[in-house]
Amino acid sequence: MTTTAPSLPRRLAAEAVGTALLAAVVVGSGIRAAGLSQDGGVRFLANATASAAALGVLVAVFGPVSGGHFNPLVSAAAWWTGRRGAAGPGARATLAYAAAQSAGAVAGTGLANLMFQRPVLRVSVQGRDGAHLWLAEAVATGVLVLLVCGLVRCGRGGFVPVAVGGWIGAACWATPSGSFANPAVTLGRVFTDSGAGIAPGSVPGFVLAQLAGALAGLALLPVLFGRAAPGLPAVPDDARELAAV
Amino acid sequence: MTTTAPSLPRRLAAEAVGTALLAAVVVGSGIRAAGLSQDGGVRFLANATASAAALGVLVAVFGPVSGGHFNPLVSAAAWWTGRRGAAGPGARATLAYAAAQSAGAVAGTGLANLMFQRPVLRVSVQGRDGAHLWLAEAVATGVLVLLVCGLVRCGRGGFVPVAVGGWIGAACWATPSGSFANPAVTLGRVFTDSGAGIAPGSVPGFVLAQLAGALAGLALLPVLFGRAAPGLPAVPDDARELAAV
Amino acid sequence: MTTTAPSLPRRLAAEAVGTALLAAVVVGSGIRAAGLSQDGGVRFLANATASAAALGVLVAVFGPVSGGHFNPLVSAAAWWTGRRGAAGPGARATLAYAAAQSAGAVAGTGLANLMFQRPVLRVSVQGRDGAHLWLAEAVATGVLVLLVCGLVRCGRGGFVPVAVGGWIGAACWATPSGSFANPAVTLGRVFTDSGAGIAPGSVPGFVLAQLAGALAGLALLPVLFGRAAPGLPAVPDDARELAAV
Amino acid sequence: MTTTAPSLPRRLAAEAVGTALLAAVVVGSGIRAAGLSQDGGVRFLANATASAAALGVLVAVFGPVSGGHFNPLVSAAAWWTGRRGAAGPGARATLAYAAAQSAGAVAGTGLANLMFQRPVLRVSVQGRDGAHLWLAEAVATGVLVLLVCGLVRCGRGGFVPVAVGGWIGAACWATPSGSFANPAVTLGRVFTDSGAGIAPGSVPGFVLAQLAGALAGLALLPVLFGRAAPGLPAVPDDARELAAV
Repeated sequence: MTTTAPSLPRRLAAEAVGTALLAAVVVGSGIRAAGLSQDGGVRFLANATASAAALGVLVAVFGPVSGGHFNPLVSAAAWWTGRRGAAGPGARATLAYAAAQSAGAVAGTGLANLMFQRPVLRVSVQGRDGAHLWLAEAVATGVLVLLVCGLVRCGRGGFVPVAVGGWIGAACWATPSGSFANPAVTLGRVFTDSGAGIAPGSVPGFVLAQLAGALAGLALLPVLFGRAAPGLPAVPDDARELAAV
Repeated sequence: MTTTAPSLPRRLAAEAVGTALLAAVVVGSGIRAAGLSQDGGVRFLANATASAAALGVLVAVFGPVSGGHFNPLVSAAAWWTGRRGAAGPGARATLAYAAAQSAGAVAGTGLANLMFQRPVLRVSVQGRDGAHLWLAEAVATGVLVLLVCGLVRCGRGGFVPVAVGGWIGAACWATPSGSFANPAVTLGRVFTDSGAGIAPGSVPGFVLAQLAGALAGLALLPVLFGRAAPGLPAVPDDARELAAV
Repeated sequence: MTTTAPSLPRRLAAEAVGTALLAAVVVGSGIRAAGLSQDGGVRFLANATASAAALGVLVAVFGPVSGGHFNPLVSAAAWWTGRRGAAGPGARATLAYAAAQSAGAVAGTGLANLMFQRPVLRVSVQGRDGAHLWLAEAVATGVLVLLVCGLVRCGRGGFVPVAVGGWIGAACWATPSGSFANPAVTLGRVFTDSGAGIAPGSVPGFVLAQLAGALAGLALLPVLFGRAAPGLPAVPDDARELAAV
Repeated sequence: MTTTAPSLPRRLAAEAVGTALLAAVVVGSGIRAAGLSQDGGVRFLANATASAAALGVLVAVFGPVSGGHFNPLVSAAAWWTGRRGAAGPGARATLAYAAAQSAGAVAGTGLANLMFQRPVLRVSVQGRDGAHLWLAEAVATGVLVLLVCGLVRCGRGGFVPVAVGGWIGAACWATPSGSFANPAVTLGRVFTDSGAGIAPGSVPGFVLAQLAGALAGLALLPVLFGRAAPGLPAVPDDARELAAV
């Protein structure tokens, strides 16, 4: 590690804090919206919009420190795609990222519960099961991984915050599962008895589906964005040929 | 083709996947919103916002690979405006783009139906006919083509994703037709019996209106943005004189 | 005029088309939202959001051609602030701009009426009078002029589209008048009997208030942003010291 | 002070005007939304969205003049983080900033009341008390300070307007207190009897909580973003390694 990279503890702290804030917004905005509106559409509009905005902002702010993953599958994808070069985290750092993200998500969920005077950590009983929900989680996660890795491969990593926030905001509406698309936040949402919760028994299905989706996204990556070989032509960052073929 | 351009199969794959995701968000968000809200305005707000966000993100992500058209009329406009230079796709590539986009739109519609446990591909019976709807489709499509080609001609192609998403999001509200503005996605929406559907008998009117609008947009292009002649003064990309006359 | 500037007819065409599209979105989205929702807040949310998005996009797209004013008071401010240099339009061009914008706004209103199968041009009977509405129009317009001229003076004209769209979107909600903030669009909205209309008798009050606001904005300009003297230190465009004092 | 910096009076004027406009949008949009919708969620969606948009725009526009703080705690953080170099304001300038911001917030609240034909300055009776609200204010303010200072420390100050607007918009939903997160605007909101008001007796609790949060944010700053020592590796502004670890 050179002096230009933040130390691993600092990166882990950034991932933990960022994921905590993300989970706090997801859970907190759900509670607040349920208290303010009787209309399910208005509630979800608030929940999805606030979550997407927070996600985009947090990725942009913590990106220079830790990458701004907040998601074990994004970290794993960064490890996998960078495993032959110096760009990605190592396998051990990736596991440490996942642990920090998971701890952050649980802490952020507890913070939201606390702010809204609910039990700090109470296990949810809201089952979320069914093949159609698993398909939805796979699609939402696979596209997420594809977008992030594809943008980086094209040299357009600066667009990642907007793309991640925009995609998750859209996917919330486009899927019946709510597009958790994140094993750490899925784990965190076990610990709230509000509408954002998920029962422990539903977690394995969600996480496996997210993992399957991430693998599919990684499989599509070279098909759509080419290989990251040394001979790969660099795509300039300034997007000037965006609309050209 | 030089080594700097993605191969045609890769570009076709990007157009198919991108259009599929766009159609999945358009159809899926319509189904989800209808299930959550009783208010037609809230439903359409969710549907239009999610669709516009997804469109902008997908154009930005797949733009460096294939141009991010997801729309046969945008591809045709790229071919037409670039036909004398090296910038645009050839006529055969344009046809292949249209086929990939159409197949993607049908597949994406099926994916949305599947995620929401509806019949995968059931033909819609929702008629959408009338001169006022055709006028609306012509306006929405013509402005879309004008914006995309005008930005590229001004050397500001990097703004295309935001402009396309923003315009379609606004046009959804400003027109009575819902601003399909895209023959491929119009075809895809034949295959859902949800609120986003369109009956097969209404497709020719919509597509002809979109084609007429695109032609009008192309006719306005040199009037407003000048000719792309070699002697054309280049407009810098950094938009510094944006507000200056 | 050098060869680097679009000709005056082309600039006038851009102003007319851009203002027409803006008026069409303002009026059309109002009609559509009224047809879809029973909730006044949802209606106005759709109306304001669609209008703000269209405004921002249109300013960005037509900015390189004509400046993207779409508003006689913005054109007049560009003339006034640039009158001693080569940057602004001349007095005659400014008048021609205002005429093109006004014609465009009426045409765009008619287009929206036509798309929604309403009388193409029917004079509104909706009175909008009162000192509090005039105050609101003055505030909305004054800030608009201040933002646009201030950004240009700071060398950050590239942010104008977002600032204009964002401010108008916010001001729609922050004022009781709906923040017309534009004499041309105010004139156009005379010709619709939909909720977006304004009775002819209310136009003078609105336009005078907008004019007073624009003058106040121009008076504040040197107080806040300094004089555009040759000795003025240039503020770099890249916004790097944004948060520094 | 060199000739490249705006004079202190000009910077104070910018802070006063900017904070006044921010308070006017916060209060005015609350009044308008309450008049248009019966649904508490729609009301708050309008209020939060308009406030966030105005905040982001105002920070971007006035940033080059005064820093665009509009918040005594942001000014204090700029003073604290820059106290050993030339970047930040001095202690006396910071106090003057706070005074200008507070006066602006009261004036802006009065302007909103005036536009909506309410008593110009009437003291609110709306109590907002409780440890959970104070926790919420601390979290919202602490993250705000952390984001602003962290971005500047990473050399990405140009992203501050979007980050501030996006975070406050999300935090409005994620917290039960409405995320005032600003002592000056909190003071201003004392002077409206509309729904946006806060009773004088609740102000000390809110302001102390905001102060505690800001201190926590400053404490986290070096942990997450490193020290601003001369030897600190500079993070490039172009965000190219955003998604890389």
